[in-house]
Amino acid sequence: MSYYSPRRAGAVSPPRLTDKLRLYHVDMNPYGHRVLLILEAKKAKYEVYRLDPLHLPEWFKARNPRLKIPVLEIPTEQGDRCLFESVVICDYLDEKYARNPLHSRDPYVKAQDRLLIERFNELIKGSLECFDTNFAYGSEQIIQTMDIFEKELALRGTNYFGGNKPGMLDYMIWPWVERLYLLRCINEKKFDEKRSRFPNFADWGDQMQLDEVVKKHSSSPSEYFDYYENARTHAMGYYL
Amino acid sequence: MSYYSPRRAGAVSPPRLTDKLRLYHVDMNPYGHRVLLILEAKKAKYEVYRLDPLHLPEWFKARNPRLKIPVLEIPTEQGDRCLFESVVICDYLDEKYARNPLHSRDPYVKAQDRLLIERFNELIKGSLECFDTNFAYGSEQIIQTMDIFEKELALRGTNYFGGNKPGMLDYMIWPWVERLYLLRCINEKKFDEKRSRFPNFADWGDQMQLDEVVKKHSSSPSEYFDYYENARTHAMGYYL
Repeated sequence: MSYYSPRRAGAVSPPRLTDKLRLYHVDMNPYGHRVLLILEAKKAKYEVYRLDPLHLPEWFKARNPRLKIPVLEIPTEQGDRCLFESVVICDYLDEKYARNPLHSRDPYVKAQDRLLIERFNELIKGSLECFDTNFAYGSEQIIQTMDIFEKELALRGTNYFGGNKPGMLDYMIWPWVERLYLLRCINEKKFDEKRSRFPNFADWGDQMQLDEVVKKHSSSPSEYFDYYENARTHAMGYYL
Repeated sequence: MSYYSPRRAGAVSPPRLTDKLRLYHVDMNPYGHRVLLILEAKKAKYEVYRLDPLHLPEWFKARNPRLKIPVLEIPTEQGDRCLFESVVICDYLDEKYARNPLHSRDPYVKAQDRLLIERFNELIKGSLECFDTNFAYGSEQIIQTMDIFEKELALRGTNYFGGNKPGMLDYMIWPWVERLYLLRCINEKKFDEKRSRFPNFADWGDQMQLDEVVKKHSSSPSEYFDYYENARTHAMGYYL
């Protein structure tokens, strides 16, 4: 991975792609975090173009009128093309790069995992509610979703949702789980209580933190805490 | 295909599956229509269990607490299992049955098609708005979405989105397009005006109507018209 040198997007669009992919990403954005994990897991050649969401350059708006973020730009025979939607981008990468297959080869298991990824959106909505100060309602949504994943891990009887190593489902949900650890900064005792309610999920989280791919793009609880404190001040909640 | 004999669901759950799939379906439901098209295109062995959405049997509620429809029930080594979400079900069928591949083998084209299927949801929302009597707003959404598909067909330069035969994208959007023809029953002149605005899309629709898979599960404009007239009377708009 290489970061494109102007760390904030400039007035001029970056050069055409030659031999690698380009991810347009907003720092700390969990959807972009998903794509970073998969790019890393697949050992793809890529560069990251960091965008400031409050100052999107004109050339970026022209290329991406719906202002979706993240965007993966890929070289094709017809020129550089953009892909949107983190789940679609990640599935694309899994199919394009044969190394380290992340989806199950069993179509039924793959379908189940896709449904669980969709189901996980309720935890994401819960996080947004918490951020929006509707804390009681949001945390209930988070806990209900975690219950589903706790039971699913027990049912599968494996360390990871993907089996003996992290697969697509593990990486798709990880960005939000990593961010949940910032609760430690708020109330360590409450965090431990919640942890004991989800023993399988807690062990899974401990193991995920040791994964090389995860480590490459992780931030600490206090980094998230500082980021969200700042984001709240700047009304940037919708980039969560 | 065989229809399960009690055409309306009974008090007793149907027997366990042996050698075929079972689709729980509500008549005229477009999401179930998607799955019927793919089951047919893949020549899968299946039966249809018709449900009355206003009188769902208790055993069905127990098996499917979120009351999702359609549901595909499939025999697995661990017993019969349910899959939800028409897009996930259809992708599952495409992967499970090798015959007549419906998704492009090019991961980039497949990803593009998935984005277009998602984009098509705006036409679906538009249809619901029209049904909800917010006709001006709804029809604008429909036309904006059709513009995108019109341009896409021109860009691809093929008869179908899938190339020289219908593929996954063609079948995923077809149920709502087939229903759009009911506009003929309302105002033939207006229908023809709209048609001339979307020449590629109109030709595509003509060809789709001749497709064997489509013909097997088609209803006529007047059948849809009667159905929706009746549905509106019975406040069943949300089954659209």
